Amino acid sequence: MIPTLARTAAALLIGNELLSGKTQEKNLFPLAATLRARGIRLCRAVVVGDDQDEIATEVRRLSKEYDLLFTSGGVGPTHDDVTLEAVAKAFGVTAKVHPTLEQSLRNTYGSSFTVDHLRMALVPEGAELIVTQEVTWPTVVMRNVWILPGIPEIFRTKLGVVHANVRGASEFVTRAIYTKLDEGDLTSLLNQIVEAHPSVEVGSYPKWFDPRYKTKVTFDGDSQSKVDLAVEEFLRLLPSGGAQTLDPGDD
Amino acid sequence: MIPTLARTAAALLIGNELLSGKTQEKNLFPLAATLRARGIRLCRAVVVGDDQDEIATEVRRLSKEYDLLFTSGGVGPTHDDVTLEAVAKAFGVTAKVHPTLEQSLRNTYGSSFTVDHLRMALVPEGAELIVTQEVTWPTVVMRNVWILPGIPEIFRTKLGVVHANVRGASEFVTRAIYTKLDEGDLTSLLNQIVEAHPSVEVGSYPKWFDPRYKTKVTFDGDSQSKVDLAVEEFLRLLPSGGAQTLDPGDD
Repeated sequence: MIPTLARTAAALLIGNELLSGKTQEKNLFPLAATLRARGIRLCRAVVVGDDQDEIATEVRRLSKEYDLLFTSGGVGPTHDDVTLEAVAKAFGVTAKVHPTLEQSLRNTYGSSFTVDHLRMALVPEGAELIVTQEVTWPTVVMRNVWILPGIPEIFRTKLGVVHANVRGASEFVTRAIYTKLDEGDLTSLLNQIVEAHPSVEVGSYPKWFDPRYKTKVTFDGDSQSKVDLAVEEFLRLLPSGGAQTLDPGDD
Repeated sequence: MIPTLARTAAALLIGNELLSGKTQEKNLFPLAATLRARGIRLCRAVVVGDDQDEIATEVRRLSKEYDLLFTSGGVGPTHDDVTLEAVAKAFGVTAKVHPTLEQSLRNTYGSSFTVDHLRMALVPEGAELIVTQEVTWPTVVMRNVWILPGIPEIFRTKLGVVHANVRGASEFVTRAIYTKLDEGDLTSLLNQIVEAHPSVEVGSYPKWFDPRYKTKVTFDGDSQSKVDLAVEEFLRLLPSGGAQTLDPGDD
């Protein structure tokens, strides 16, 4: 399979437990890092509960608006696992038991296999199954929608499959400078850099309770030389002694 | 101030860093737990970057659709802090320097105060400032939109103010049973409980790499007796030895 070329992506994180304070959402962060490493801009993430209509509405909207959509959660065998049917609904098709997945389930469960397990073999009509040497359990992709599991340990194994199968038009370059200045005292300087380097995205992140630095300033772009120019000008204009060159490495 | 009575809420989590894999989002979880404890249903969360128009569009939509909206992030003094102006835009008003906030900033920064710090005193016209004994820095609320900071340590201190000022119509009751059964083997039983107890929300969460249990089953509702009835029936129908009564306490 040739990696899909994509500029933009969205994430749909599914599960009542994420909105009721029972479970901390853990999949957005590694997904964002994976897409970033492939040069794809993750533009939006939405968290919704286990509601088929609501999921279908979001899948329809996000899969139209962005090049790729990644869903997480709702793919197990029980009544609250409704993602596969919702994705099918979003594309106006039905979800059917896929023979490859049925066979995988029969092999896994052996004599304890029951018809109830078959919910885990449902895929929207027309979906593709991706199997790799590392991740032998099939990953389901419906057009531009990757349907990933919610359990963080399993989700992360799927990111290797994502990494191998999608790529952006160019890579992102990022640099960070840790300064000892209060964010408010950096404002004028940052405005100057932002104006002079329109192709570089400048971020400013204060840290309140860290003795090592006060504000982390990040520089992002798709050209190393342009990012470097912005960083060099920032450092030149920074009051002397204001920069901390060492990366505290724990933000 | 009388606590605002609300049934539903949404969260808008703002910041490029949350979508680029630089920073793990940490505010949704404690916000969800706070609202849950007050009997308010958090229905949806959306993560967007530092884009004024996009934030304004979401604020308009979510504040109309839900009783309360909580934003997190984008309230500092730099060019990428655009939440206050975006909320103002969503409501068709302008953002103006608030004299109380200006005075707080002048007191905080003393002789190092500059006009650049004034961005942190901007509030949408008509916004209310809430000050409590515990959280003396004003919390900005614009109609049904709570505008909270992104830094997790500061965000959490604001949740005390939220807790004191909002409440739902009734409290949520939740119970959890940890079972040693595979989720697939519980499906029929769960379907039976879901059908017999329509006012109780049943959730099923498999744990893959834990020797102590395989599936956590949760029961949520607004009536203790109804939740108890569902739990009792579930336990009665569970194959003997299938339940783990002790809460492993680390999910």
